[in-house]
Amino acid sequence: MTESTGEAAADIPVAFQDPQYHEAVVDLLGAIAYGEISAFERLAEDAKLAPTLEDKVAIATMATAEFGHVGRILERLTAIGADPFAAMAPFRAAIDLFHQHTAPADWFEGLIKAYVGDGMANDFYREIAAYLDVETRDLIIDALEDGGHSRFVVDRVRAAIDADHRLGGRLALWGRRLMGEALTQAQRVAAERDALSALLAGGVDRPGLDLAAIGRMFTRITERHAERMAELGLAS
Amino acid sequence: MTESTGEAAADIPVAFQDPQYHEAVVDLLGAIAYGEISAFERLAEDAKLAPTLEDKVAIATMATAEFGHVGRILERLTAIGADPFAAMAPFRAAIDLFHQHTAPADWFEGLIKAYVGDGMANDFYREIAAYLDVETRDLIIDALEDGGHSRFVVDRVRAAIDADHRLGGRLALWGRRLMGEALTQAQRVAAERDALSALLAGGVDRPGLDLAAIGRMFTRITERHAERMAELGLAS
Repeated sequence: MTESTGEAAADIPVAFQDPQYHEAVVDLLGAIAYGEISAFERLAEDAKLAPTLEDKVAIATMATAEFGHVGRILERLTAIGADPFAAMAPFRAAIDLFHQHTAPADWFEGLIKAYVGDGMANDFYREIAAYLDVETRDLIIDALEDGGHSRFVVDRVRAAIDADHRLGGRLALWGRRLMGEALTQAQRVAAERDALSALLAGGVDRPGLDLAAIGRMFTRITERHAERMAELGLAS
Repeated sequence: MTESTGEAAADIPVAFQDPQYHEAVVDLLGAIAYGEISAFERLAEDAKLAPTLEDKVAIATMATAEFGHVGRILERLTAIGADPFAAMAPFRAAIDLFHQHTAPADWFEGLIKAYVGDGMANDFYREIAAYLDVETRDLIIDALEDGGHSRFVVDRVRAAIDADHRLGGRLALWGRRLMGEALTQAQRVAAERDALSALLAGGVDRPGLDLAAIGRMFTRITERHAERMAELGLAS
């Protein structure tokens, strides 16, 4: 139990005294929160395509799990002195465009997008989280837990490909398209949000990444994408 | 803490030895579970109509709260020896038809439907819950908690009517239509599901309602509907 007096102040780590760090964390939490809201909307939309009520419940469970983290992130933004809705605003265009450009044509494209798209986003946020204060890092790692729903997607997709091999070719193309669109929008965000980019590059008293390290980070993210595609039985 | 041995059996009350009671509870839980799944889908759909991101988050929070109860109800159905998906099946047509006939034309119709429609359904389930074993009753009462989201709906609707008085007339008509459609589908379900109707009429060792008592129950539900409409600033 913590003392109730001065708890809010004690809750804000020293790192936040660096205004650029503060700005970067506000950006990052804003991007994650809006990403989860969008993921919720998209999964709820996919639930309509579910072939059975069991599938619908499984997808709706994934949707509510995504949304379940939003409240805590918005509270954290408020606690560190930011307006949560202003924090999300700069990321709406990129995230909305990503979803517009990757609207699933059927149930399986929706499942792959849920698994592969969220997986990529989560890997990226986890990489960044490694450079943050403990409280923010734990909040982000918590928010990115998938609650074991991935098993459901893998089982459904593998069974469908076993039953119809042509589906595998189409879904492999779809996975590459998701990767391409995600990188396009991520680059757009990186170009526009200086504080967020500077966070990766390091700052006063904080270690950062040199160009080679950033390259290695993207290699790791791409490798994990390939692993996920392989788990689904798809070429990446 | 309960003893871990024989907990599952101890969890099933004596009342369930009456097969008709068992059937009625399976029906009731199936209807509530599918109702919550549909409410989730409809609220997630309404979230798209939200004029601001704040409103979207508020509606998505209501949607996830509705869905949050589904897991426990499905678990309870399994625990009393029923297939949860088979239990929901008989209620899909009536609940889907209700939603088809009451698709909101705009954000405010969606808000009123969330508040007034769920309110009516909840009152009805609460009335029935009074005739059930304690475990089932508590589960249902818990599942129907609205988590204080109603305040948001009341505030939004009252502010909109203050700003545009013609809106009040249209939304009052909408509220009456919701009531009419709900009664139509409820009657349809009552006519088709004997065990559920028999539950209200009582059975071996269980008190039931005579016709006058059923009349008083509907009067109470109608009165609460009128109260909710009044709280929104609408004529019922």
